[in-house]
Amino acid sequence: MDSFGLSTPLSVETLHGSLTDPAISSMNLLNELIDEYPVAISMAAGRPYEEFFDIRLIHEYIDAYCDHLRRDRKLDEAGVTRTLFQYGTTKGVIADLIARNLAEDENIDAAPESVVVTVGAQEAMFLVLRTLRATEHDVLLAPAPTYVGLTGAALLTDTPVWPVQSTENGIDPDDLVLQLKRADEQGKRVRACYVTPNFANPTGTSMDLAARHRLLEVAEANGILLLEDNAYGLFGAERLPTLKALDRSGTVVYIGSFAKTGMPGARVGFTVADQRMAGGGLLADQLSKLKGMLTVNTSPIAQSVIAGKLLLNDFSLTKANAREIAVYQRNLRLVLGELERRLGGRAGVRWNTPTGGFFVTVTVPFTVDDDLLALAARDHGVLFTPMHHFYGGKGGFNQLRLSISLLTPELIEEGVARLAALITARLG
Amino acid sequence: MDSFGLSTPLSVETLHGSLTDPAISSMNLLNELIDEYPVAISMAAGRPYEEFFDIRLIHEYIDAYCDHLRRDRKLDEAGVTRTLFQYGTTKGVIADLIARNLAEDENIDAAPESVVVTVGAQEAMFLVLRTLRATEHDVLLAPAPTYVGLTGAALLTDTPVWPVQSTENGIDPDDLVLQLKRADEQGKRVRACYVTPNFANPTGTSMDLAARHRLLEVAEANGILLLEDNAYGLFGAERLPTLKALDRSGTVVYIGSFAKTGMPGARVGFTVADQRMAGGGLLADQLSKLKGMLTVNTSPIAQSVIAGKLLLNDFSLTKANAREIAVYQRNLRLVLGELERRLGGRAGVRWNTPTGGFFVTVTVPFTVDDDLLALAARDHGVLFTPMHHFYGGKGGFNQLRLSISLLTPELIEEGVARLAALITARLG
Repeated sequence: MDSFGLSTPLSVETLHGSLTDPAISSMNLLNELIDEYPVAISMAAGRPYEEFFDIRLIHEYIDAYCDHLRRDRKLDEAGVTRTLFQYGTTKGVIADLIARNLAEDENIDAAPESVVVTVGAQEAMFLVLRTLRATEHDVLLAPAPTYVGLTGAALLTDTPVWPVQSTENGIDPDDLVLQLKRADEQGKRVRACYVTPNFANPTGTSMDLAARHRLLEVAEANGILLLEDNAYGLFGAERLPTLKALDRSGTVVYIGSFAKTGMPGARVGFTVADQRMAGGGLLADQLSKLKGMLTVNTSPIAQSVIAGKLLLNDFSLTKANAREIAVYQRNLRLVLGELERRLGGRAGVRWNTPTGGFFVTVTVPFTVDDDLLALAARDHGVLFTPMHHFYGGKGGFNQLRLSISLLTPELIEEGVARLAALITARLG
Repeated sequence: MDSFGLSTPLSVETLHGSLTDPAISSMNLLNELIDEYPVAISMAAGRPYEEFFDIRLIHEYIDAYCDHLRRDRKLDEAGVTRTLFQYGTTKGVIADLIARNLAEDENIDAAPESVVVTVGAQEAMFLVLRTLRATEHDVLLAPAPTYVGLTGAALLTDTPVWPVQSTENGIDPDDLVLQLKRADEQGKRVRACYVTPNFANPTGTSMDLAARHRLLEVAEANGILLLEDNAYGLFGAERLPTLKALDRSGTVVYIGSFAKTGMPGARVGFTVADQRMAGGGLLADQLSKLKGMLTVNTSPIAQSVIAGKLLLNDFSLTKANAREIAVYQRNLRLVLGELERRLGGRAGVRWNTPTGGFFVTVTVPFTVDDDLLALAARDHGVLFTPMHHFYGGKGGFNQLRLSISLLTPELIEEGVARLAALITARLG
């Protein structure tokens, strides 16, 4: 019998293939280096700024949500308590408040019943891919490089991800058409294309308005869904409409995160899936069925924290994040300025100039791999993310990602100085 | 191209097969009936008793955890705040407190690094099955009937579940051996066998001590893992050791829930997976890698609520649930007493007599299907769960499950009276 011999240790080769995929194993290296070199300046972590965190806010937010249940929903004390303590509806208890936030901040008109509240955007990505991936012929398209969370959700659902070229203006619509044709020729069924039009992780790039319209046209003409991830849209100098706000044909499934705009520790995200199903109901109802088998429902206590933040800020996270937006904009300017001051004019060294978000891409004329990262941590006291991690190990070997979100001006100056020393040493 | 035509509605037949599985669709009926007949007495819902819920406890628990971080972990205010607000470690921030609880309540010796904190026991089940299911030859064994959450996690991971016969003393070890032989003959690899030794959902049955030892022996001899689910163990007149407490060979992966003993609204569960991996580390480390791709981490705010309840009760949930245990024991006695009073001696009508947990199984000499449930709701004002839902539609058609957890003595008397009227009418 070919089952576990428990007298001997388990072998990872007998477990699900995702566990030995390079995309997963490689991300552990970064965490190990952070532990090993705690004094290194990390321009790697994409975590939100911490200075405005205050433990009292958690209590205030929960209280605000309870007041809302009493005042606006007319619940008695037993009803309020039950809402937070008991199992809740699978789709979530704050879908209507999220819909009001989307109207306020994003000009998105989302019916509350099309919203599924999830354990972060990550669970939303898993649910959408698990729902769409029905046969071994199904594939997902995504720009290369792409967010590792998308890669992870695809691995867990055994969904092959086909790369589409991307430029400084986002995903290349001509290459998208080419890949759709190629998939068709190979008997594959393209279930969707993943995109991040606003300040994408990892590149920092955004799509202009014309590119958004063009992408929607291509998707509509070819009958594919677009999965729009908008974790960073709030943090820009200018705000362009999301694909979902422009969508008139049910082409876009919107994936939202409160990790950067609300609070990472709440682990609350959501999806808007208002596509109609044959036989009635919405795609959101199908996602909800799978959520019931995955996490049952998102903690109503965690939801109440996000709800309270929305309620106390007139449903505007733009308003709630005024200070954070200013910090991220300042940090972005400082990083770009320091890069120019330290590395401007160096042959083969260049970087993009995002106008918002958490990330900048630096291109260098030498190989950026995990060995270089280890050397940077040890000899230069600086951490970044080699871009090849976002290409599934199949590209990006002369690029690195810098994160600007968690740093102070002093750390930015010192961090870029250390990075410049590394790059200068490699240029020889 | 065979992709979505978005001008036409999506068809569920093009989506993942789990969405059209009878096990999933059938569970929706119950929710619909609860909505449709709100005045029906529900002996269907397995939700915890609500009388002792108090919104102030949430604040007290969070404060207690923050005090613990300051006092025992020596964190400064920034560190305390960061722990609750920021992304946390994938395995969870309260693994050590859960280990202390397991030592206190269950006599289980769990190393904190073997614990993965999950979004309820449901995510733990998904993670274990996703980790173990590597090829199309992999199957899982489980007693018939079995918990629908296990069925759901198996569907999401495309894991076939092979039924093993069960008796009033739990899973039948002889049939387990037979099924292992059968799997071997058919070229299948049995990854594990799922069991609930304490007051199983749906049957209410428990295994005696001899049966626990025998099951461990069979599993060890055949080199298979046991997945032990212990959501109800606390609520018994007597406490038998869990399989994990008896396990000396790393045979048992333990799945824990705080939904009934802590608070459903926290959505916090966990797994203890201390199996050693070839090449180092524990099975828990592999589960953690997959969790990073599924939900990133369990909300530290939700974890803090459970942590606070543990800290304020000397790590004993037995102590914390003294009043709840008394209520459930009383309700169980009342339901069994009312069944005897109303239905004792009726030919072909019988029920089991669990000594703890939330559930009682009633057997009747006629078909119990969803049509009967609808009739019971409409004509008799009582809801139960037809047992066939827990057999994947392949058995149990003359049994029903009664839940005792959410009821008052008055509702029990009236609910069993209504049920008896239905049964009497069917007996004709």
